[in-house]
Amino acid sequence: MHQVEPRSKPQFDFGSDNYATIHPEVLETIAQVNVGHAPAYGLDFVTAEVRELFKKIFNHPVQTYFVFNGSAANVLSLRALLQPHEAVIATDVSHIQNDECGAPEFHGGNKIITLPSQEGKLTPALIEPILIRLGDQHCVQPRLVSITQPTELGTVYSIQELKQLSSFCKKNQLLLHMDGARLGNAVCFLNSSFQEMTTDVKLDALSLGGTKNGLLGAEAILFFNHQNIEAKNYHRSSVPAHFKFIQKQELQLPSKVRFLAAQFKAYFQNELWRRMAQKSLSLTQELAQALQNIPEISIQYPVQSNAVFAQLPKSWVKPLKETCFFYIWDEKKFVARFMLSHDNQSADIKRFIETIQQLQKKNTR
Amino acid sequence: MHQVEPRSKPQFDFGSDNYATIHPEVLETIAQVNVGHAPAYGLDFVTAEVRELFKKIFNHPVQTYFVFNGSAANVLSLRALLQPHEAVIATDVSHIQNDECGAPEFHGGNKIITLPSQEGKLTPALIEPILIRLGDQHCVQPRLVSITQPTELGTVYSIQELKQLSSFCKKNQLLLHMDGARLGNAVCFLNSSFQEMTTDVKLDALSLGGTKNGLLGAEAILFFNHQNIEAKNYHRSSVPAHFKFIQKQELQLPSKVRFLAAQFKAYFQNELWRRMAQKSLSLTQELAQALQNIPEISIQYPVQSNAVFAQLPKSWVKPLKETCFFYIWDEKKFVARFMLSHDNQSADIKRFIETIQQLQKKNTR
Amino acid sequence: MHQVEPRSKPQFDFGSDNYATIHPEVLETIAQVNVGHAPAYGLDFVTAEVRELFKKIFNHPVQTYFVFNGSAANVLSLRALLQPHEAVIATDVSHIQNDECGAPEFHGGNKIITLPSQEGKLTPALIEPILIRLGDQHCVQPRLVSITQPTELGTVYSIQELKQLSSFCKKNQLLLHMDGARLGNAVCFLNSSFQEMTTDVKLDALSLGGTKNGLLGAEAILFFNHQNIEAKNYHRSSVPAHFKFIQKQELQLPSKVRFLAAQFKAYFQNELWRRMAQKSLSLTQELAQALQNIPEISIQYPVQSNAVFAQLPKSWVKPLKETCFFYIWDEKKFVARFMLSHDNQSADIKRFIETIQQLQKKNTR
Amino acid sequence: MHQVEPRSKPQFDFGSDNYATIHPEVLETIAQVNVGHAPAYGLDFVTAEVRELFKKIFNHPVQTYFVFNGSAANVLSLRALLQPHEAVIATDVSHIQNDECGAPEFHGGNKIITLPSQEGKLTPALIEPILIRLGDQHCVQPRLVSITQPTELGTVYSIQELKQLSSFCKKNQLLLHMDGARLGNAVCFLNSSFQEMTTDVKLDALSLGGTKNGLLGAEAILFFNHQNIEAKNYHRSSVPAHFKFIQKQELQLPSKVRFLAAQFKAYFQNELWRRMAQKSLSLTQELAQALQNIPEISIQYPVQSNAVFAQLPKSWVKPLKETCFFYIWDEKKFVARFMLSHDNQSADIKRFIETIQQLQKKNTR
Repeated sequence: MHQVEPRSKPQFDFGSDNYATIHPEVLETIAQVNVGHAPAYGLDFVTAEVRELFKKIFNHPVQTYFVFNGSAANVLSLRALLQPHEAVIATDVSHIQNDECGAPEFHGGNKIITLPSQEGKLTPALIEPILIRLGDQHCVQPRLVSITQPTELGTVYSIQELKQLSSFCKKNQLLLHMDGARLGNAVCFLNSSFQEMTTDVKLDALSLGGTKNGLLGAEAILFFNHQNIEAKNYHRSSVPAHFKFIQKQELQLPSKVRFLAAQFKAYFQNELWRRMAQKSLSLTQELAQALQNIPEISIQYPVQSNAVFAQLPKSWVKPLKETCFFYIWDEKKFVARFMLSHDNQSADIKRFIETIQQLQKKNTR
Repeated sequence: MHQVEPRSKPQFDFGSDNYATIHPEVLETIAQVNVGHAPAYGLDFVTAEVRELFKKIFNHPVQTYFVFNGSAANVLSLRALLQPHEAVIATDVSHIQNDECGAPEFHGGNKIITLPSQEGKLTPALIEPILIRLGDQHCVQPRLVSITQPTELGTVYSIQELKQLSSFCKKNQLLLHMDGARLGNAVCFLNSSFQEMTTDVKLDALSLGGTKNGLLGAEAILFFNHQNIEAKNYHRSSVPAHFKFIQKQELQLPSKVRFLAAQFKAYFQNELWRRMAQKSLSLTQELAQALQNIPEISIQYPVQSNAVFAQLPKSWVKPLKETCFFYIWDEKKFVARFMLSHDNQSADIKRFIETIQQLQKKNTR
Repeated sequence: MHQVEPRSKPQFDFGSDNYATIHPEVLETIAQVNVGHAPAYGLDFVTAEVRELFKKIFNHPVQTYFVFNGSAANVLSLRALLQPHEAVIATDVSHIQNDECGAPEFHGGNKIITLPSQEGKLTPALIEPILIRLGDQHCVQPRLVSITQPTELGTVYSIQELKQLSSFCKKNQLLLHMDGARLGNAVCFLNSSFQEMTTDVKLDALSLGGTKNGLLGAEAILFFNHQNIEAKNYHRSSVPAHFKFIQKQELQLPSKVRFLAAQFKAYFQNELWRRMAQKSLSLTQELAQALQNIPEISIQYPVQSNAVFAQLPKSWVKPLKETCFFYIWDEKKFVARFMLSHDNQSADIKRFIETIQQLQKKNTR
Repeated sequence: MHQVEPRSKPQFDFGSDNYATIHPEVLETIAQVNVGHAPAYGLDFVTAEVRELFKKIFNHPVQTYFVFNGSAANVLSLRALLQPHEAVIATDVSHIQNDECGAPEFHGGNKIITLPSQEGKLTPALIEPILIRLGDQHCVQPRLVSITQPTELGTVYSIQELKQLSSFCKKNQLLLHMDGARLGNAVCFLNSSFQEMTTDVKLDALSLGGTKNGLLGAEAILFFNHQNIEAKNYHRSSVPAHFKFIQKQELQLPSKVRFLAAQFKAYFQNELWRRMAQKSLSLTQELAQALQNIPEISIQYPVQSNAVFAQLPKSWVKPLKETCFFYIWDEKKFVARFMLSHDNQSADIKRFIETIQQLQKKNTR
């Protein structure tokens, strides 16, 4: 979608949760901390306070770093944990493989080994066969598993699935990274907690998304330091103390950090994260249920987050996009992705369904 | 300065212009565009509008890209214009050499050839001797000159100096990049215009600073495409059409671009940039004049932007920092840097001078 | 195989063609040019002469560069032709994907898109479906197809197959690179010529192998410059004139180039390449025919080069390796790879078959 | 010098020691080990034997790796020991700064901090002032000192100078690397030993040159592992156990390693290294003494290796180059570098001096 002129009145679509507005409480919190001079680069008290808040929320002495976008959160997690000859294991639908324009390769020299996802997820059974040629000088060494929660296909790993994967990783000396660009949705869907989904799963690193969750532009990288990562051939602590240099050299060190930290302060304050997640999840279920009644439409995956993937008749794509913009996820099979954000309303779903009903009528004529 | 507890009341120091608050008009403009869904990645109408605004301000069909911080604006300018075997020429006090933690080397493989600055500036006479071994396979090829305006030492190139440097570069097939992290101050100081200082100087690329000029967090890279850059051995247009991929792969593509573009919209609206610059420059002159009357203090460079570099008695450093935080620029000679931002006041200078006067009295006793 | 003590008498195995000796004519030619001082870095007359020889052999004004190993020949071909956001298309059994320890990713930031090979080969039908998201800023752009001839599985593309692939690439603005680590074997097998297999196929770049073909240690990269590679978004000639800087900065510039060029002089002199290829191919056919008579052994792919891939009974692996070392290619299916080199003899095959016959007898008891 | 036609008879110049021939004993040793198949990638007994030989020669359990050229030996030493944010300290005349086309920057992202050499050498007093901003996130961290022995200017560090530098480094937590492209010459000049000059100095890594010392093309990297390198912020052993992956991913893993190891076997056998060094050093002294008698010529630095740097009258350059090729080291001051190799003779010096005498006569007429 390319929008060169303002619309006559504001509209809310299904394009993406990064099309959404900033939640008003986030802008308020930014304004609240916008008082007086404060040290830059994270040495201010707002940032210190929010770092402590993270430790509380995750019930663990996590080390938190604020960066600018989700791709950077992922790539800097890899830079912290991997050597260039070490590979990342991810699904074939993962953001890290498909939507970061080769950033892991470029920044860290890391190859990504992709596996065919099971409804967006990785399992020990999928990973086990590719753990070959270990120690072979000619071959990249698989070293880190990256999962996305919720997945890119809108599904959610159960806590048990996460723990199985985590055990498998520890057993095979693999690090475990979670791309949590929309993690709040998963916590909400499972009626779980951030701690249960990450600390208790013994993750090594987490990219916690903010921008796709009503913030202006902020992401957090959390390192859990569960273990001294003893790996074949070398011994290194979870996150190197020199990560601050990695962050700077990677051009991901903000100066006015307090304004990124403040966004996460708002996110956790009065459970804003949950209120936004509940709203998007609830609207997503509403849309999914409405679509289930449409025989021409076929929902592709369990709807467990804020996205519905649905196969549409080819002729419906254009008119539906004009009603309510969305992306075509699979250009060959005409599978669309409908995303609901914290600022969508039932009215958006209503007008969308109305257009569908008109298209149905056209079909039957 | 490391501030873990909030201060009893807000204070304004001389630490840096990235310690400063966001100007209220900037937050207002962000709120104004925070309406309805808009395409991400810069395809929204606010971003389109601001890109057109840049063309007007600079009176040139500039290509504008928004990135997250000044180091990224510099490094991505290099990535757009240089091959890995090509070197950057910069001063020994430049940000690109001293404060980017080796990011040019890391991202582009580019060596930086440093020259001793003349009060922060480069001149053709300084550069000419190092244009040797051209075409020598064993040696990096000098290809781009990067200047900072205003310089890191708070001085300003005159328009004539800029034009001389630019002619010299063209004559020697060197590209010219300007790090304008505080460009507004230079335009204001010379009572010039953005166009006169950049377009008319025939720059190849400009890093236009925002974060140090009252914005929240936004920088712009401008490519001028004055010429098809015909260089020894190969032929390439000014900025490759594939720059969008560079930006993404370099982790510098924001999703909610409208909120970065909006910051620059506020910056240029009602000449906010000029109002802020005039205020900081005026306060800086006020401080400089006050300091000139202090015999124990020696101002190091002409004061032409928002910084005063002054040598202090060693024993004054600690008490003065407690009054009004500042950075020591040169740890061996005890040269301090006092920076004035848009939200400083004469009162800050007053209390600073008072402390100095007390220290003077201590000295004489 | 790890050999810490010399063997009592020299032995010739099936491990790899880089286990083989240097052909005596190669050492002779090195000694012949080892006379008097000569300029380094390729500016000597021997290198000049061999570069002309390549133009004659390939019947095309190829630009030839000598590098140290096959992985470097591949990676430097990519560095010459690709931007970091551009991807390589290769098979899932390719050397560039499996045996270069992530060098393409590390040096050029290039992602490798792998496709399941058809007996080691790529086809237009395999490639076509992945040419999606073209121009999409978030996604690497497929830009170069890399094929291996003969393939890693010992099969050979016919000239027609090569031309079809080449047409397909040109039609889709894809560059075509050939990893010819053992190219001489393919030319010999098809009774073709170097020109027919490369120039006439309109390759963009060729890694011509030497080390696996009786040389000491030398590889050549050939650029064909068939076309000004006009690609989406930018215009660049086939190999940039600054390739000499790439070669140097990539640590692949030899100083005493004449001794690498001399190895290729020997390679082409009196068709040494053909004599060596004919010998290995003939021995390979001999081994393949002998193995075809062994019911317990199953040959996996057409035998068209100097390698036989055969599935063995698990219990045969150890004793057979002791007779004549070889590598297990697939650890799960116990597929072995037997490679024949220019210095193997029928006697090696004989003793191997004898051991097999003893193992067969053991089985039947 | 660009030589496209063979000379009528072989000639020996002063261009460089990489213009020289391969010493016959080196070719003999290559031929001697060219017997039967041997494992590739260094797993053969010749390589094992030579690795043990290195331990004996250096009287230390050194870890030795063979690579293709001197630039690679330097850069891979850095890759083993440095993080990307860490800087190298070297002289302004060093090969690593001037003649590797930015390879340290490209491969490791490492900035090189150059200091003005004292006759080619670094001293603690030169280094000490730049050890600033330690721990400053914005600034590269000086971490490794790289010296060249003999220096690029043909001078030699005394053992005492080396030990002082080494102590200084240890005291300041700096690693010490030696570029020994011509190390044999220094050992010979000081009538010392390899052990005394490296192991006893407690180097961290050594690039031991071969190609410039009568070999065909081979360099060795030696890691001394004197200490667990405990550095600010992290703890890592001297050379990571994963160096083998670095070597491979950096395209510096030879397959037929035995032929590189064999070159070093010849180098140390019957003290060939010393015989070659003594010859070049002796010829260099002969040339230096002859030149000292020429008033128009001014020798620039102490002559302690195989090079004489001499300032010449501008009009002499062309005719002298025609007699005996050499490089102009400093194009502005007309300082030439005359290098003597193991295969030069007194006759070369004689004919050179004769030409000088003719030029002198021309001058006086």
